[in-house]
Amino acid sequence: MKKILLIILDGLGDRPNRALGNKTALQAAFKPNLDYLADNGVTGLMSPVGFGIRSGSDTSHLSILGYNPREYYTGRGPFEALGLGIDLQPGDVAFRANFASVENGRVTDRRAGRIKDTTELSRSLETEIDGVKFIIKSGVEHRAALVIRGPNLSDRVSETDPHAINSDIMLTKPLSPEAEFTSSVINKFLIRSREILNNHEVNKKRIQNGEKPANEIMIRGAGKLPEMPSFEKLYGLKAACVSGTPLIRGIARMAGFDILNVSGMTGRTDTNYENVISAAVDALKTHDFVLVNIKGTDIAGHDRKPELKREVIEKTDRAMEGLKKLLDTTVIAVTGDHSTPCSFGDHTGDPVPILISTSGITRDYVKTFDEASVSLGYYKITSLDIMPLLLSYSDRSEKYGA
Amino acid sequence: MKKILLIILDGLGDRPNRALGNKTALQAAFKPNLDYLADNGVTGLMSPVGFGIRSGSDTSHLSILGYNPREYYTGRGPFEALGLGIDLQPGDVAFRANFASVENGRVTDRRAGRIKDTTELSRSLETEIDGVKFIIKSGVEHRAALVIRGPNLSDRVSETDPHAINSDIMLTKPLSPEAEFTSSVINKFLIRSREILNNHEVNKKRIQNGEKPANEIMIRGAGKLPEMPSFEKLYGLKAACVSGTPLIRGIARMAGFDILNVSGMTGRTDTNYENVISAAVDALKTHDFVLVNIKGTDIAGHDRKPELKREVIEKTDRAMEGLKKLLDTTVIAVTGDHSTPCSFGDHTGDPVPILISTSGITRDYVKTFDEASVSLGYYKITSLDIMPLLLSYSDRSEKYGA
Repeated sequence: MKKILLIILDGLGDRPNRALGNKTALQAAFKPNLDYLADNGVTGLMSPVGFGIRSGSDTSHLSILGYNPREYYTGRGPFEALGLGIDLQPGDVAFRANFASVENGRVTDRRAGRIKDTTELSRSLETEIDGVKFIIKSGVEHRAALVIRGPNLSDRVSETDPHAINSDIMLTKPLSPEAEFTSSVINKFLIRSREILNNHEVNKKRIQNGEKPANEIMIRGAGKLPEMPSFEKLYGLKAACVSGTPLIRGIARMAGFDILNVSGMTGRTDTNYENVISAAVDALKTHDFVLVNIKGTDIAGHDRKPELKREVIEKTDRAMEGLKKLLDTTVIAVTGDHSTPCSFGDHTGDPVPILISTSGITRDYVKTFDEASVSLGYYKITSLDIMPLLLSYSDRSEKYGA
Repeated sequence: MKKILLIILDGLGDRPNRALGNKTALQAAFKPNLDYLADNGVTGLMSPVGFGIRSGSDTSHLSILGYNPREYYTGRGPFEALGLGIDLQPGDVAFRANFASVENGRVTDRRAGRIKDTTELSRSLETEIDGVKFIIKSGVEHRAALVIRGPNLSDRVSETDPHAINSDIMLTKPLSPEAEFTSSVINKFLIRSREILNNHEVNKKRIQNGEKPANEIMIRGAGKLPEMPSFEKLYGLKAACVSGTPLIRGIARMAGFDILNVSGMTGRTDTNYENVISAAVDALKTHDFVLVNIKGTDIAGHDRKPELKREVIEKTDRAMEGLKKLLDTTVIAVTGDHSTPCSFGDHTGDPVPILISTSGITRDYVKTFDEASVSLGYYKITSLDIMPLLLSYSDRSEKYGA
């Protein structure tokens, strides 16, 4: 039995970039270690969740770890809350929240003039009503997450986002009888919030400056944490996660992973790549399965910066120099969780290269790790196929049949 | 967001033909435009419905458009009726019908001596009984479709085809209580039909000529039109269909497509290829999605004519000359709905080449559009994967997750 090291370069898949001579970031990158692993292993194209599906990092990581998102993805609320670093607990109900602008009871801007920072506003709304704790965390621009914590809460409540300007502001309604308490306590919170936000210094200043106030918080995507069997229970693997990204750490925690903290790990392009990979190698001594997520490739894709994406790949590759000597005892797999082409600036449904390397493995003809090269490789799979393959190559699969 | 042009060469997939130097029709054809699109895009092999499934044009087109035939295919009756050009309406019950020969109440030939033309016979049977209209349309040889139209009709009636000669002729039975009226009115029709057919001039002449009479109509495959969500509702795409084939037009109409009429479009090998492609290009100005079906490749396959199949491909390719300049604004995909190898003369479960081309797409190494070449390409998919891929490549997918 071998250990398993799975390195996810977030948003790895790319399309041709003019700035890189019509190459993808992977095609343009100097990456001898990734190529070594591709050469000494099997490769292919992996479609996250399914062919052509434009998946998020949440649905994709769930599926890579073998949790089918059709079963375990409980909506944006809980996953956005995880992504913002809220320590979501069983029983909590989480919402995606937007700060919006309201005048005379009508929505004038669903994004509050794309306000830059709502941290102070969010903080002013945190409270406890009827034994229910309200936790609000600001995201980028007008975005935030609301988590309510207390006994007997239900996620069967309606959204309060009218999805159109000039609409009346809304309160939530119970969608089934057991949600009546939850709905009423949220409405108390919303009414209280309007008062606080309308009188808040931040909004007074915005109005003085001719900007739209962020005086309404609209909620949607109600959901609870899914009840997932632990990774250890599913596969008998003691697992650790090395990632600076709250969403990935949250998902790994839900699966029962040990969440490692690493000096210099930022979850940004300026992360300490050497430390991240070293921490993973260290973790392999005490764990059977280590998941690494490098977020920089996705950030560069969203920011439409092909040179930066190439640089993140090259830095990751350099940090992987020492991994070759682990192949006798470890299955090393590298892929992305989805494509974030720099030319598009967001996730697409393009498949992502994958490599699996270990000693003694049958090699395909692919010697280079990039989109076109691995299309000549062993596999055309979806993310749900990854765990069975890793278990098999690490000699950990149960035989199915006799 | 880009427009989508999906060109289906019906029955495109082929096997080696001795007459073409052991090449498939695609391998033997001169098709610079198809090769250009393959070179400037991604390619692969597409298995209609599922790997090895020997699908019909109906089940395959349903699945290509994202309607899983396991859910939406309601049997041969309605789809054969559509295929014969009957304007099937909601509530109608449709049957596959066969003209058969009967002597002394026993079936002597289930295909009525493979009678050439039953048009006159079919016409003589059209009638209205107890408020139910009986519509019969002749197909090839002994084949026909029966459609009954009226209030409160049920498709839960048994077939009247004994599937063996020397069996007694049959009447239909209700398979559930609500089908009693339907069953009884059909039986009135069947009894009346026997009298008409036995006394029909066509049959009297056949008997004089020593041929078997077509004096019984046997029905099976009862079904209603499936209730399908419209293409626009499913994908937000305003869609048009360019096809001279009643079955394809019928399926597209069920999905809410605009059905275009094109001068010179015959649905045969003698169709006006230039007009067909021009009409599709025109339709892209007012629609998001245009489906073209070229039937000639399938006809040539059924007729075991490899040179003709090659010719249909070459004529289609020539008509596609102008498509290259659309790639900045359009995703162009070309595939077949199934394989109809000339060496077999009918549909097989062989996978079919597919190409997807648009500006900015990641290219695989495939430069030629044929069965073997595209096997080195990006995808090994089923027809149900096509719509997600087209939506993703046209930047129209919703993100699944965050």
